[in-house]
Amino acid sequence: MFEITLTLDKKNKEALYLQLYKYFKAEIQNGQIKAGMKLPSKRKLAAHLGIGLNTVDTAYQQLMAEGYVESQLRKGFYAADLEPISPVNEPLPVKAEMKGPHDERSKIDYNHGRVDVDSFPHAVWKRCLNNTLYLQEREMFISGDPQGEWGIRAEISSYLFQSRGVRCGAEQVIIGAGTQYFIHLLRLLLGNERVFGLEDPGFHRVRQVLSLEGAKMAFIPLDESGMNVDSLKNSEADVAYVTPSHQFPSGMIMPIARRVELLNWAGGKKGYIIEDDYDGEFRHTGKPIPSLQGLDTKGKVIYLGTFSKSFIPTIRVGYMVLPKELACRYQENLIGYKQTVSRMIQETLCLFMKNGHWERHLNKMRTIYRKKNKVLLNAIEENFHDRVAVIGEKSGLHVLLKVKSSSSESELIQKAASVGVKVHPTSVYHSKKVKEPTVLIGYGGLTEKEIEEGIRLLKKVWP
Amino acid sequence: MFEITLTLDKKNKEALYLQLYKYFKAEIQNGQIKAGMKLPSKRKLAAHLGIGLNTVDTAYQQLMAEGYVESQLRKGFYAADLEPISPVNEPLPVKAEMKGPHDERSKIDYNHGRVDVDSFPHAVWKRCLNNTLYLQEREMFISGDPQGEWGIRAEISSYLFQSRGVRCGAEQVIIGAGTQYFIHLLRLLLGNERVFGLEDPGFHRVRQVLSLEGAKMAFIPLDESGMNVDSLKNSEADVAYVTPSHQFPSGMIMPIARRVELLNWAGGKKGYIIEDDYDGEFRHTGKPIPSLQGLDTKGKVIYLGTFSKSFIPTIRVGYMVLPKELACRYQENLIGYKQTVSRMIQETLCLFMKNGHWERHLNKMRTIYRKKNKVLLNAIEENFHDRVAVIGEKSGLHVLLKVKSSSSESELIQKAASVGVKVHPTSVYHSKKVKEPTVLIGYGGLTEKEIEEGIRLLKKVWP
Repeated sequence: MFEITLTLDKKNKEALYLQLYKYFKAEIQNGQIKAGMKLPSKRKLAAHLGIGLNTVDTAYQQLMAEGYVESQLRKGFYAADLEPISPVNEPLPVKAEMKGPHDERSKIDYNHGRVDVDSFPHAVWKRCLNNTLYLQEREMFISGDPQGEWGIRAEISSYLFQSRGVRCGAEQVIIGAGTQYFIHLLRLLLGNERVFGLEDPGFHRVRQVLSLEGAKMAFIPLDESGMNVDSLKNSEADVAYVTPSHQFPSGMIMPIARRVELLNWAGGKKGYIIEDDYDGEFRHTGKPIPSLQGLDTKGKVIYLGTFSKSFIPTIRVGYMVLPKELACRYQENLIGYKQTVSRMIQETLCLFMKNGHWERHLNKMRTIYRKKNKVLLNAIEENFHDRVAVIGEKSGLHVLLKVKSSSSESELIQKAASVGVKVHPTSVYHSKKVKEPTVLIGYGGLTEKEIEEGIRLLKKVWP
Repeated sequence: MFEITLTLDKKNKEALYLQLYKYFKAEIQNGQIKAGMKLPSKRKLAAHLGIGLNTVDTAYQQLMAEGYVESQLRKGFYAADLEPISPVNEPLPVKAEMKGPHDERSKIDYNHGRVDVDSFPHAVWKRCLNNTLYLQEREMFISGDPQGEWGIRAEISSYLFQSRGVRCGAEQVIIGAGTQYFIHLLRLLLGNERVFGLEDPGFHRVRQVLSLEGAKMAFIPLDESGMNVDSLKNSEADVAYVTPSHQFPSGMIMPIARRVELLNWAGGKKGYIIEDDYDGEFRHTGKPIPSLQGLDTKGKVIYLGTFSKSFIPTIRVGYMVLPKELACRYQENLIGYKQTVSRMIQETLCLFMKNGHWERHLNKMRTIYRKKNKVLLNAIEENFHDRVAVIGEKSGLHVLLKVKSSSSESELIQKAASVGVKVHPTSVYHSKKVKEPTVLIGYGGLTEKEIEEGIRLLKKVWP
């Protein structure tokens, strides 16, 4: 047990020992001091509270006499096991999914946020972690650069150039705990008056943040190339948020012509483009298309990336590349915001990248996901032929299935659940009602066998 | 080298090999492809770009002929070492302190943000980290509870009750990457119309965030007990931000009577109190005073804590305890915000606490800091007698020194620097100009010897 924090009132007519006794009695009764918990030693408690040893002794004796406390020879005093009478802290009515780990799991969950567990380089990652702790013991104790450590920013800038065609120096890279946090920083950086043009359908988490923060939004429909620039032009938007490598959720890759159109829109309008490259690392077919940022010559593109898809979702490390002008503005105005990512994780990731593990990991994952993608598409073709349409299969870790069925989206999901398969809705990503039932199938976290099995099971329940 | 992301234009009248050649030439010239960097193998590049092997070969031959690329037998092609002509990426004019690790260090830096490096339980922490990675390999891959993992929230709630008298269930605890992030969440939770009453002088980082976000603020002067409640009542404020365990920066401990006054203010006004207990763990003399949260019966206190002082600053883990009503509102409205702390760190910290290491660590640090506090006070007394007044020495990891001198604050700081000692300004924490020069002396990160040595050096230069 740590300390006891209570205030004894010496002016109170009640004796100090009684006050102490009552405190322990109440806390043991209401369960704040749990059964079996060790009480502070008499000596320590007396010193801690600045009262006499006798006072504590008398209180403890009383508690023992009444059965609230038990003493163990040469070990000390322990709270007895009582049934709580009326808990001071009646627990909140907590939603099921909030309480502890999420136990309820389907047999096969086509979750788009999961990645391949078995391929994670556990041993190498542990080694990097331990090396970091060993080599940089002292640095770990000094608050680092609020923008993120220079080393990892340099690694990311070099990686992004090679892999995604992004052109930036480390001084333009900002490390932070995820896209939502960056959206908040960008709001501060760009000003409250900006109107965000959002893909419709589009990424709900960004929409949510913007809406909670009271940002102005315009929903811009997609066509087959991604965000429709004519609609964008007709809207009030002066910041366009897009996912060109693998539109979320529809999965299209924005062709080069549309990218140029978008850049011209931004250039002509004092606008900005936020390019969220959330799983741009995984392209399965077709040629590489450089990032919008790489095509931008006017400092109009803000590039967002994350290690959630390419590494692990729970690491909570993202990066933002600002155009130089905005990077200056950030350093002038927002540098007071402390870094949100633990230095230990930044340094470990930096070492991991520097030693070439990151490149190897990505190459390995590309092959693995490409294969899973193929397995999924084959399974769908075999089991459903033309009764479903697959959308957005060329990159990323999920596809959409448009099901030719009289069932609604939620009926399809329920039917899937009845055979232990979890597929995910897409209607939540739309601002308007959707006609054809379309579900989202993420396959990054499933084995090839599970991917096939799940589709076979779906065949049984989907007409 | 990862991949090359360029777009070859087949309709272009320029031959593909020429386009490829020009790309590499430009990138090697401008230094984006650095000297000695390995180019992709011809075979891989051809496959990657979907072009013929001959095309790549011709481009590489041309690059070799012109000296941009060198080949090494049976190893591959490497970028040559050229002087860049005109870098595409002229680096930003970066402020000195932004570039890489902060090298400029005084011999003795009385920094208030540092903690005792030598006492950090490196071995135990590493063991917990490795155990976590081993035991929870799978869980690490599944996005966890956005509010923070249940385990660590339960540990924190139990610790806070015992050590700080805070009464809450784990469902009221929210994990997050630091106080500034929580302030942002609180703004969303409480609404934009709130007026924040801030201690003056007070914590600059909170002031900064509120000001950048456009929050309304009222500066409330301190008296000898902390925030003056009469002034608070006369202001527009309906949220009071206070640091009662060790006022930042003045260091006073808010007495119980003032705490009750504050609670009554909040109760009568539909107001809230944000209690920032940033280093409440370290009380050197006097009796423990329970947290405001523990005294609150009306759900008016929002409690903020951090592991930055009590553990290490770079871990970036903080916690917020919400009154039940606000906790419900958080779960209804803000649960879409993803957790900002890496799950690995949460689980490791949880294990560390569960196994009793946290309690042991805190007890050890209390003894160490109490001793350092004594050493500092003795050294000041010995060297300065009544030529300085020490303020806020009863708790926390810093004190203020009010210097009886005709020198200004900045002169005192400069004189200290001339003998290799860094003391820190306090004027930055005031909204108004300060009369008497007062500097801040943090001692957590210094050894006892350094603490003494620094004060001796100050004596030489301060009149």
